[in-house]
Amino acid sequence: MTDDTSNSATDPRPAFVLVRPQMGENIGAAARSMLNFELEHMRVTAPRDGWPNERAVALASGAGRILDHARICDTTQEAVADCTFVFATTARDRDLTKPVYTPEAAMIDARKRGASGQKVAVLFGPERTGLENDDIALANAIVSVPTNPAFASLNLAQCVLLMGYEWRRTAAMPVPMEMEMADTQWASHAEMEALIAHYEERLEEARFFWPEGKAAAMKVTLRNLWSRMPLTRADVQVFHGMMRQMVRWKERG
Amino acid sequence: MTDDTSNSATDPRPAFVLVRPQMGENIGAAARSMLNFELEHMRVTAPRDGWPNERAVALASGAGRILDHARICDTTQEAVADCTFVFATTARDRDLTKPVYTPEAAMIDARKRGASGQKVAVLFGPERTGLENDDIALANAIVSVPTNPAFASLNLAQCVLLMGYEWRRTAAMPVPMEMEMADTQWASHAEMEALIAHYEERLEEARFFWPEGKAAAMKVTLRNLWSRMPLTRADVQVFHGMMRQMVRWKERG
Repeated sequence: MTDDTSNSATDPRPAFVLVRPQMGENIGAAARSMLNFELEHMRVTAPRDGWPNERAVALASGAGRILDHARICDTTQEAVADCTFVFATTARDRDLTKPVYTPEAAMIDARKRGASGQKVAVLFGPERTGLENDDIALANAIVSVPTNPAFASLNLAQCVLLMGYEWRRTAAMPVPMEMEMADTQWASHAEMEALIAHYEERLEEARFFWPEGKAAAMKVTLRNLWSRMPLTRADVQVFHGMMRQMVRWKERG
Repeated sequence: MTDDTSNSATDPRPAFVLVRPQMGENIGAAARSMLNFELEHMRVTAPRDGWPNERAVALASGAGRILDHARICDTTQEAVADCTFVFATTARDRDLTKPVYTPEAAMIDARKRGASGQKVAVLFGPERTGLENDDIALANAIVSVPTNPAFASLNLAQCVLLMGYEWRRTAAMPVPMEMEMADTQWASHAEMEALIAHYEERLEEARFFWPEGKAAAMKVTLRNLWSRMPLTRADVQVFHGMMRQMVRWKERG
């Protein structure tokens, strides 16, 4: 038995337990997905094709150390022996004797438990059959991915991907919308006024506001249009530049 | 060109556009993931191995009708011509000229737009290289999955899975109604293209794109600016009108 190092009291991350996985490819893909979302503690119970698994290593490319440090166990019981809270991933409505969490709720819960020193495990069943009732009996709660009831099946690697995604996503909560635009230099009101005035003046000269009876309404329309646009200071300069160039072009005759 | 039936004004679901996908297996897996989360409108531009694709069909098992109804296009431009809002999925920090959304924020936004009659597309790049800058230039916004910066890469099928998951997950969230804009006639992608082309042509004549060495970059800047603007069909006509009037003014001398 190798060690997944997840015993560390200072590491709040859950262990992902692959229960009796069949295809090495899926074990490798699971390792990649875990590392994509900063999870590193894999445990594997009774892998069908033994251990180490060449196909798993090939597929894990770049995430091989997850496999190197994976804890290999004979039984699910052994794999979760040191854990204080165990989630079992299953299709919906499989077992109503335990609380059922969404992936999001499960990972928020895992994060809280991890932060308070608890050790959390998430069980993933074998490809074809999913977890057996004996595995689920070891769990404190169920996690179920909300899928199309008419087309529900997710494979092992997909299920690991989604749980990993939720682990990473819930780390950032609350997620401010459009973070990356946060330090954008938006145009000030005064800059917008100057742009509106520039266009109005030049379009007036070009007799855009015509017939005269409609001129006032057209100006209001234009002002409303400009003020709905989310313009940066740079955008405003581009619009000024376009208009100046059209005027130069006219003046060159 | 077959039809993905997503023109239906009553279907608020986004189209997922696979741009130049390479492996049939990934196209099939994408179809399954879409159906898992109740999405059915697939478009495919220039699939490397032609169409129909046997390996895609084999992998899609159970979700074959997504492929049967997929719209096959030669170019990304053609694939999004009828769309009013386009998201491009890319790795982080690729392009800072457009707003960057999390998958969650993007699918909440797509849901709102869909509910108000807009047609939304989500672009997914080819396996090895991801979307090219020309594809991204067609988009109104970027979607980026928050991953481990040291191990960020997700493959095509994984990316489709996560976006589909967020589409389904956000269905359960209350959608704030934006009544005022609810029946707005947003400009289609094709109408925006026509506007961009009109301005580019006239500004070219007016020698706006100068010095010549910077012309290409200036055109990209301008395209990015226009695609960030939330323009209605009426707004587009106003912008056309302004430019036409400036040209008339010049021609009167």
